Amino acid sequence: MKPKQNIMHLPVYQPGKPIDEVKRELGLTEVIKLASNENPFGCSPKAKEAIIATVEQTSIYPDGGAVELTQAVAAELGVQPNQIIFGAGSDEVILMIARAFLTPQDETIAAFPTFPQYKHNAEVEGATVIEVSVDADGKHDLGAMLAKVNERTKIVWICNPNNPTGTILNEQEIVSFLDAVPDHVMVVLDEAYVEYTVNGQFPDSIALLNKYKNIVVLRTFSKIFGLASLRIGYGVGHPDVIRSVNQVREPFNTTSYAQKAALAAVKDKAFIEFCRDANAKGIAQLTAAFDEMGLPYFDANGNFIMVDVKRPGNDVFQSLLRQGIIVRHDPSWGYPTMIRVTVGSEEQNDKFVDALKLALREVAVS
Amino acid sequence: MKPKQNIMHLPVYQPGKPIDEVKRELGLTEVIKLASNENPFGCSPKAKEAIIATVEQTSIYPDGGAVELTQAVAAELGVQPNQIIFGAGSDEVILMIARAFLTPQDETIAAFPTFPQYKHNAEVEGATVIEVSVDADGKHDLGAMLAKVNERTKIVWICNPNNPTGTILNEQEIVSFLDAVPDHVMVVLDEAYVEYTVNGQFPDSIALLNKYKNIVVLRTFSKIFGLASLRIGYGVGHPDVIRSVNQVREPFNTTSYAQKAALAAVKDKAFIEFCRDANAKGIAQLTAAFDEMGLPYFDANGNFIMVDVKRPGNDVFQSLLRQGIIVRHDPSWGYPTMIRVTVGSEEQNDKFVDALKLALREVAVS
Repeated sequence: MKPKQNIMHLPVYQPGKPIDEVKRELGLTEVIKLASNENPFGCSPKAKEAIIATVEQTSIYPDGGAVELTQAVAAELGVQPNQIIFGAGSDEVILMIARAFLTPQDETIAAFPTFPQYKHNAEVEGATVIEVSVDADGKHDLGAMLAKVNERTKIVWICNPNNPTGTILNEQEIVSFLDAVPDHVMVVLDEAYVEYTVNGQFPDSIALLNKYKNIVVLRTFSKIFGLASLRIGYGVGHPDVIRSVNQVREPFNTTSYAQKAALAAVKDKAFIEFCRDANAKGIAQLTAAFDEMGLPYFDANGNFIMVDVKRPGNDVFQSLLRQGIIVRHDPSWGYPTMIRVTVGSEEQNDKFVDALKLALREVAVS
Repeated sequence: MKPKQNIMHLPVYQPGKPIDEVKRELGLTEVIKLASNENPFGCSPKAKEAIIATVEQTSIYPDGGAVELTQAVAAELGVQPNQIIFGAGSDEVILMIARAFLTPQDETIAAFPTFPQYKHNAEVEGATVIEVSVDADGKHDLGAMLAKVNERTKIVWICNPNNPTGTILNEQEIVSFLDAVPDHVMVVLDEAYVEYTVNGQFPDSIALLNKYKNIVVLRTFSKIFGLASLRIGYGVGHPDVIRSVNQVREPFNTTSYAQKAALAAVKDKAFIEFCRDANAKGIAQLTAAFDEMGLPYFDANGNFIMVDVKRPGNDVFQSLLRQGIIVRHDPSWGYPTMIRVTVGSEEQNDKFVDALKLALREVAVS
C-alpha cells in the first residue's frame, strides 16, 4: 500500500494547542490571538442571522452548485455565473486548480515566502515548483518570476497582497507581467485580502479578465467577511477554465451554512466598509508605534503587518505568548527577526504594543 | 492552459433545480424529497444547540486537526486518534485517499453500480478503474472482484451497504475477501449507512482493523446523524495509512460548525436509536406495500430501497414528481425499470405509496 512517491516528503499537519490549553499552561485569563489574520470585528450580524435560519435545514444536502450565492457574487462583480467556482475556502480552489491542471511534466512558479498552499498542492500533483524570492521590500519579483517562465510552465501564483509580507503589486506591474506571459500560462491572482486594500493603485483584476483569458482571481470570505470558520472562497476566470476546475470539484464541496452566511455577508456593505476603515486606522496605529520603537516593517496592505523586531523572532513570539498575545513567527519564511501580527481592534493593538515593548526589553537584540 | 488529459472527459456537475423552483413550475405547495437519503427526522437537537453556540466564533478558523471530535470518535470506536481522519463528508476522504495513493500506473476496483465518487476520484488521478457488476440480487460480486486483483491493483472500494442497491456483505464474506486479497491492496469499506443496519451478520469492521492493516473504513455524519448540510465524515485505518492521507489534507478542511455539531451528535445515542428503529419500520412499511403491488426490490439495509417498478423508471419518476414526490432514477445505474426511494417518515412513506400507485396506473408496463 505505497502512497504516491511525490507526497511522501510532505509535512504532516501538527495540530496547534487549543487556546484554552494555552491559557491553562500559562496561567492566563485572557488570550488575544493576532496570529491568523482573522477579523477582530467578527462577521456581519446578517450572516449570523442567516446561519441561525439554516438550523432547521441541517439534515438536507447543500445546493451543490451554490446557485444563489454564485448569482449574487457574479452580479456583484459584473461577471457571468459560469465564471465563478466556490470552494471550502480559497484553499480548496487552489487544490482544485492544481488537481485539474498540474501534472508531473509541468512547472509552476510562486514567490517565496508566500501562501504555502500553492506549493503544497503543486507538489501533491508532482509538478516542479520554482520559488522566486521576494525582493528586499517583501514584494514579488515579477522580473525574476518572468525569467523562469518556459514552455513547461503551467501556472504562476501571485498572492496580492502577499501573505505573509503584506506588500502589493500595482495595476501597472500586473498588466506588464500579463502582457509578457505566454498564453499557455495560467496566472492565479490570489486576492484573499483585496477588500482591505486602500491603495488606489491596486489592480482591478476583475476588469482585467475581459482582456486576459488566462487569469484566475481568488477571493475568500475568511478575511474581511469574517467567515473563516465556515470555509468559503471562490475563483473567477474564463468559463472554459472554470469548467475544467468544476470537473474535479466534489458535488457538495461547500456547506449550506457557508453559502447562506456568505450570501448575507456579501450584501452587508456597511460592515465591510467599517472593517476596512478600522483596519486602515489600525495599521496607522501599529506602524506609528513601530516607528517610535525604531522597528522596520513591510508596506502593509492586508490586515496584518510583518515587522522586524531586530531580535530572534521566536524569542519575541514566546515573550508575547507569555503575556497572552499570540502572533506568528514561522522560521520557514526566511526572516529570522520578523513577526507577523494581525491588525486587531484599537484596544487589542494597544495591548499588543505594550506587550511588544516589554518583549523588546526581555529579548536581547540579535 | 491545457487541463490534465485524464479529466477532460469527466462530466461537469449540473446543478439541480431548487425545490422552490420545482414547486413553482408544477404548481405544488408541498414537495417531499425522498431522493438523497437524507434523514427525515432531521438531526439531534443537541447538534442544533451546538451550531447556535458556535455563532460568535464564526470569524475564527476551525481547529485544523479537529482534535476534540477526533478524540470523541476514537473513544467511541475504541481506536487511537491517529487512526482517524476527518473530511468534508466521506466524499472528501475518498478524494484524499485517491489523491494520496493512486497514480496513472495503478488499477482500482469497484462495484457497478455503486457510489460514483470512487470512480470519479480515481479517474482524476489517472488510475485505471475496473468496474465489476453486482450480482442479480444487487450484491457486490466479491469473487469476480477478487479475480480482477493483480500486482497493479492499489485500492478495492466496497460500499457496504451498497448505494444504490442497499444490499450488504456479511462478516464472513468480508473476512474471506480480506484473507484472499494481497497485502499491497487497500480495501476501503465505505459504511455510510452502517448505523441503519439491523442485520446481525453485518461485519464489525472496526474490530477487523486489528487484524487487517490494509482496511480503511469510511463513515459519515450525513446520513443517520442528519448533518448532510455541514459536510462531515471520516476514515478509520492504520496510523501509517491515515498519516499518508493527512499529507494531502488541506489544513482547514472541515468547518467549526461541522465539528461542533458532530461532537454533539455522536453523544446523542437516543436520537440514533430512534432513527434506526423508525427506519426499520419504514422499510417494513414500504416493502409490504411493494409486495402488495407485486414489485420486486433489493434487500434494503440502508435508509433507501431500490424497487423495480416494471415500467420505465424515468416515466415513474416524472409521474411522482408531478405529484410532489422526488425520488431517484439514474439511467447510468443500468436498471431501466428501477427507482431508489429514501425511507421517509411514516406519513411521507404513505404519501409516496399512494403516489406510486397512481404512477403505476399512469405509466404503461415496459
